[in-house]
Amino acid sequence: MNTAHLGLPVDVPSTALFTDRYELTMLQAALRAGTADRRTVFEVFTRRLPEGRRYGVVAGTGRVLDAVENFRFDRGVLDFLADQRIVDEATLQWLADYRFRGDIWGYPEGEVYFPGSPIMRVEGSFGEAVLLETVILSILNHDSAVAAAASRMSVAAAGRPLIEMGARRTHELSAVASARAAYVGGFSSTSDLAAGFRYKIPTVGTSAHAFTLLHDTERDAFTAQVDSLGSGTTLLVDTFDVVEAVRTAVEVAGTELGAVRIDSGDLLLLAHRVRHQLDELGAKKTKIVVTSDLDEYAIASLAAAPVDAYGVGTQLVTGSGHPTCSMVYKLVARAGSDDPAAPLRPVAKKSMGAKTSIGGRKWAARRLDEDGVAEAEVVGSGPVPEGLADRQLLVELVRGGKVVAREPLDAARDRHVAARSALPLSATQLSRGEAVIPTEYVVG
Amino acid sequence: MNTAHLGLPVDVPSTALFTDRYELTMLQAALRAGTADRRTVFEVFTRRLPEGRRYGVVAGTGRVLDAVENFRFDRGVLDFLADQRIVDEATLQWLADYRFRGDIWGYPEGEVYFPGSPIMRVEGSFGEAVLLETVILSILNHDSAVAAAASRMSVAAAGRPLIEMGARRTHELSAVASARAAYVGGFSSTSDLAAGFRYKIPTVGTSAHAFTLLHDTERDAFTAQVDSLGSGTTLLVDTFDVVEAVRTAVEVAGTELGAVRIDSGDLLLLAHRVRHQLDELGAKKTKIVVTSDLDEYAIASLAAAPVDAYGVGTQLVTGSGHPTCSMVYKLVARAGSDDPAAPLRPVAKKSMGAKTSIGGRKWAARRLDEDGVAEAEVVGSGPVPEGLADRQLLVELVRGGKVVAREPLDAARDRHVAARSALPLSATQLSRGEAVIPTEYVVG
Repeated sequence: MNTAHLGLPVDVPSTALFTDRYELTMLQAALRAGTADRRTVFEVFTRRLPEGRRYGVVAGTGRVLDAVENFRFDRGVLDFLADQRIVDEATLQWLADYRFRGDIWGYPEGEVYFPGSPIMRVEGSFGEAVLLETVILSILNHDSAVAAAASRMSVAAAGRPLIEMGARRTHELSAVASARAAYVGGFSSTSDLAAGFRYKIPTVGTSAHAFTLLHDTERDAFTAQVDSLGSGTTLLVDTFDVVEAVRTAVEVAGTELGAVRIDSGDLLLLAHRVRHQLDELGAKKTKIVVTSDLDEYAIASLAAAPVDAYGVGTQLVTGSGHPTCSMVYKLVARAGSDDPAAPLRPVAKKSMGAKTSIGGRKWAARRLDEDGVAEAEVVGSGPVPEGLADRQLLVELVRGGKVVAREPLDAARDRHVAARSALPLSATQLSRGEAVIPTEYVVG
Repeated sequence: MNTAHLGLPVDVPSTALFTDRYELTMLQAALRAGTADRRTVFEVFTRRLPEGRRYGVVAGTGRVLDAVENFRFDRGVLDFLADQRIVDEATLQWLADYRFRGDIWGYPEGEVYFPGSPIMRVEGSFGEAVLLETVILSILNHDSAVAAAASRMSVAAAGRPLIEMGARRTHELSAVASARAAYVGGFSSTSDLAAGFRYKIPTVGTSAHAFTLLHDTERDAFTAQVDSLGSGTTLLVDTFDVVEAVRTAVEVAGTELGAVRIDSGDLLLLAHRVRHQLDELGAKKTKIVVTSDLDEYAIASLAAAPVDAYGVGTQLVTGSGHPTCSMVYKLVARAGSDDPAAPLRPVAKKSMGAKTSIGGRKWAARRLDEDGVAEAEVVGSGPVPEGLADRQLLVELVRGGKVVAREPLDAARDRHVAARSALPLSATQLSRGEAVIPTEYVVG
């Protein structure tokens, strides 16, 4: 299947090629060795949070479900694999019938996580589970990085709306996923139309400096915008002189002017001055939107300023210094033999240095103290201790290849607020710190 | 047009929605004001290189051309814009006929750039040019960031092959573009099958720790892999004990074993030990591939080690600390009036603080010293001085809406090597520095 005629910027016919080549070569070797059907358990987890971060945010789960459903090797893909001699004929035949028929459990989207949290668990034959490594990690590593930044910004904004404006700073489709992840992390809207189209996220946007410069005077530009978009629009007031622009804006739009946007300069100072001027002009309800290389620290520094909304771009879509998470997808258990009934047994790479992992199919639960505040992420591979059974974190996402956990994006967004609220208060400090609760391993 | 049935991870029918909403609202207001047809010139440039970087690398140009060609508002998109009341009926009608009919010039892909370099110049009516801002910036900001990191890694690798392996650390389609940009910047191959499919970049990959752990012994795993992929394959030797694994690998594959891969531990130490062991075992031609959170500094530190190839993931796809460039798309000139014959006149935002820009439609040339080494990036808006006429950097990419500058990816890759080679020697120092040549403005 060739999608070039659809005008997409990439011509990739299904999610099956969002795959590292070694997954297919491993499949081929395992098919030949007779080990591809062994039952396996793979888990997604991270060994550490980005330096200084106190919690992580699971995002992308819904996109993983889309990707798994659409992970099929159609004729175009198979031809490519054959032409390039990436796999042999027997493997091509196996791939032609491929669909994931196993089970996936995971932390629900919006949940918080910590080092060692088994964020997602994929169970199936080696052949079917090994192929999903790259696409699952791509999605979770990217989206969770953006959601974590969004969550911190959302804390800093303390209830004021946050607008996602980062599309121009990242890959055009990464931008769409970033808007989605930002929404999960607490943003209210996006400038990105594709994100509005695909995920129904509210879109916003009015004008740029180019619009003012197109016209012969700033007054002409403001008049054109108000004529077209109404007095409730947001006028950009920092193209020339802010004081003059604010005066002109109110003259043109009246005191019902929706908002003014400031995109450069000392935002703290300007917000106070502009608020004062707007009030003097009688535009007491006119809001002030600020945009200009904001991050969570800049947002926090404006907490006492008369700002009504923040637009955030670069620092959001690049994860505010941490553009990816370090999640890995590791085989943690497999059948002890080729016998389909063989029990699973834990496996793990014998560590050299930092790349430790713990074998075994794991559960996780968040233990609360007597006040209902989280005090530990408890992870184990044996029976779940009494008292934690109803605090388990993994939910069923895919059963026998069928997605069973679709939900609206707002569910993830609400879940994130609830999960974050149950963490100790220091979770939301912006300063560098350790994971806000420890991860405890219960050996089964 | 709905592409959901194609199994793509996003359902975006054309590149036209990779757009910030304000571009459409500006269009609507300009249409109503009668200013949308004014001739305009927009330029892409950056005010600064990422901190410490000595040069930038233009990448994504070919993808921009794809995006511009496919930037159409079809029925599904128009319905969305109408349903969401993003623009009015007159604007919808204008968009239905939209295709870019203007001209685009730019630095050819692979060229180096500096602060103020007019990397791309878009000329057309305001309406047609303003719409391309976001998609052009998304592509150039992302791809150039990855290519810059790739270029530095390529310098550090000093001729040894570099394998792009970062798909799992970034958005699944960002990964495809990253593999492409890495190739432009000097990488040899990628693990990402979608990049091989879409851009014909050579793909590589053999096995992961999971493959070893799937089998009852490491010997079983190596045997399975060699049986299937031949003795020329690359065996991963750090799942348990490296010394034992290397011994087993040569026993299983013979001295014709293609390569071993080391993915953890002290790579410098291990490379020497493994080389010594391989030589002692008679596997003198067996290569050593190292992978494990490499960046340009880690690669450079292995220069004296017996390493044959480097696999690089996270640090490549995240731009080695700089995941985006700060390129902007600014109106620099427009017709002085609505008269179609009105001459262009320079425009610029009146700066407050750091957001300076220089108005006027610009040319750029790289001035060489008497030894043929670059000594300045010269940018101007008047006549090109004699002596620089044949050193001009912008080439024609789109003429009257038609792409005129398609080229194979290897042309960009070769161009990058040539452009970098003509810079002063200090360009390729990895240490932090300033832009390696100054940007000089010639006032026209």
